[in-house]
Amino acid sequence: MNPVVGPSRRVGIDVGGTKAQGVALDADGAVVATVQRPTPRGDGSLDSLIETLASIATELEATHSAGVGVPGLVTRNGVLRAAPNLDGVADFAIGPALSDRLGLAVSVDNDATCATLAEWRLGAATGCDDVVLVTLGTGIGGGLVADGVLHRGANGFAGEFGHMVIDPRGPRCPCGRRGCWERYASGSGLAMLAREAAVGHRLHDVVRHAGGDAQAVRGEHVQIAAREGDTEALAVIDDFARWVALGLSNLTNAFDPEVVVLGGGLAAAADLYLDPIRRWFGELLYQPHLRQIPRIEFAKWGPLAGAVGAALLPELEAETARR
Amino acid sequence: MNPVVGPSRRVGIDVGGTKAQGVALDADGAVVATVQRPTPRGDGSLDSLIETLASIATELEATHSAGVGVPGLVTRNGVLRAAPNLDGVADFAIGPALSDRLGLAVSVDNDATCATLAEWRLGAATGCDDVVLVTLGTGIGGGLVADGVLHRGANGFAGEFGHMVIDPRGPRCPCGRRGCWERYASGSGLAMLAREAAVGHRLHDVVRHAGGDAQAVRGEHVQIAAREGDTEALAVIDDFARWVALGLSNLTNAFDPEVVVLGGGLAAAADLYLDPIRRWFGELLYQPHLRQIPRIEFAKWGPLAGAVGAALLPELEAETARR
Repeated sequence: MNPVVGPSRRVGIDVGGTKAQGVALDADGAVVATVQRPTPRGDGSLDSLIETLASIATELEATHSAGVGVPGLVTRNGVLRAAPNLDGVADFAIGPALSDRLGLAVSVDNDATCATLAEWRLGAATGCDDVVLVTLGTGIGGGLVADGVLHRGANGFAGEFGHMVIDPRGPRCPCGRRGCWERYASGSGLAMLAREAAVGHRLHDVVRHAGGDAQAVRGEHVQIAAREGDTEALAVIDDFARWVALGLSNLTNAFDPEVVVLGGGLAAAADLYLDPIRRWFGELLYQPHLRQIPRIEFAKWGPLAGAVGAALLPELEAETARR
Repeated sequence: MNPVVGPSRRVGIDVGGTKAQGVALDADGAVVATVQRPTPRGDGSLDSLIETLASIATELEATHSAGVGVPGLVTRNGVLRAAPNLDGVADFAIGPALSDRLGLAVSVDNDATCATLAEWRLGAATGCDDVVLVTLGTGIGGGLVADGVLHRGANGFAGEFGHMVIDPRGPRCPCGRRGCWERYASGSGLAMLAREAAVGHRLHDVVRHAGGDAQAVRGEHVQIAAREGDTEALAVIDDFARWVALGLSNLTNAFDPEVVVLGGGLAAAADLYLDPIRRWFGELLYQPHLRQIPRIEFAKWGPLAGAVGAALLPELEAETARR
């Protein structure tokens, strides 16, 4: 571990539903230390969450400032308005609480916004002024860079791409509507497409990997069978890729980005998804022959993207304040 | 007519499928003159289009610069790549051609981008840093202001909201895909919803206004019957408003704007649409109770928005160059 300490050592923590991931970056943006702790669950999780974050920051030797990424709607003042995957957390000013506890400046933003910052400043979108990042995990999150500025929006809630309705007669979403993009194009969506494909005793190899129960099929079972060359599993992945590309083409029509970065858990199997997503994207994009088609890349930082971006938040805030 | 001439007199022209609308603005942004000419059609329309634009600019006493808005995909260098509603126009550098003809600096951009500029600088979105503008006409166009910058995108094609797919099993779109937003939420979409509602001899009053032929129903017939209080016509408008609001909620999830401005031809009947659009928007928005809900306003400039925004293009380019 590189013993860089002080303002040039940047500490970030990404709070997930099951674990909190901390990183320390050196002045060149290299990861010099990582720490993981379970995310505390259940009653009283606000105090215990702050204790967990404080212990990570301390272990990573944060001496000047720290950044935190959280899964939920974060206001432009760093207040977490709601976080479906963190029990009991609503309207919680994590920044001031952690700042008081540590005696450091603390910046807070949405986890996918942090991932966008990481990939834009130090990853797959370095040097690009117009970026769309989409995290494909259990659900879908996202972020935007517009004209060289990380776009937060009026409330700070920009980038909620997962609840773009793309099929108003589609399956019900926990948000109350039907046919949100994340019903199809997330990890849960992949599993749903596989379970649908498995009716009538089809998708035999995938169901076998799920222990013989079609209703137990998850995305990973499709991936295992696809890697074995199972054509039915590959067809499910192709169908999934078409839903991913449909949403990406909608976002491209709206923003016209130079690059689209895909992150989240599914990025770990990028080799299975990238070619079919790119092929469908080329077919579904509006007027593809008249434009420079945006590159589609998987995130460089993988599971560390949120934490790396969180580590960059304090200096982004300082830059913004100077403008 | 106010005799303001010189750099403080700003001239803009909006090229539509049937007419070209010119305006001159004084230093305060007031319209001091307007000129309309038919848009030339058919073979040889490039030269005749330039002649038409030159005659409008001359009549409006453009002495320093002029701006032009065109219906189609415009690159960041002002080249019109394609314009479905202007015969034979493709890859046409309108700016240099008109500039040579007039001896003035000429800026060119997409017509909806121009309308966005007009409403942001001098209209319904004045003072807002995050703006979505949607033009509801025969089709749907749009524009974005992100963090106080008019967002063009990597190619200059940002804001093509009309081809956001919201119903992949929906009606075929001329662009080749199915269920684009403009199949439902444009003037043509309103007519389609009305013709569907008219099957089985329903929608009697609306069909009567269309001369008794259900297949001849257009949006204006629905509007006339709705103003007479016909409940079936009002139900069609409510259905239409739900489709409009669905797309607006998707755009709000993505951008989180402070204000959504609605322009285009349907703005002329804003009184019929505004309340149902606002009501459906409140129902369809993700997490409405946790956010400041964006205002929905109709465009201040109505049919002049494109021309007024075009008149503001040259100074926007100058500002951008100084940054």
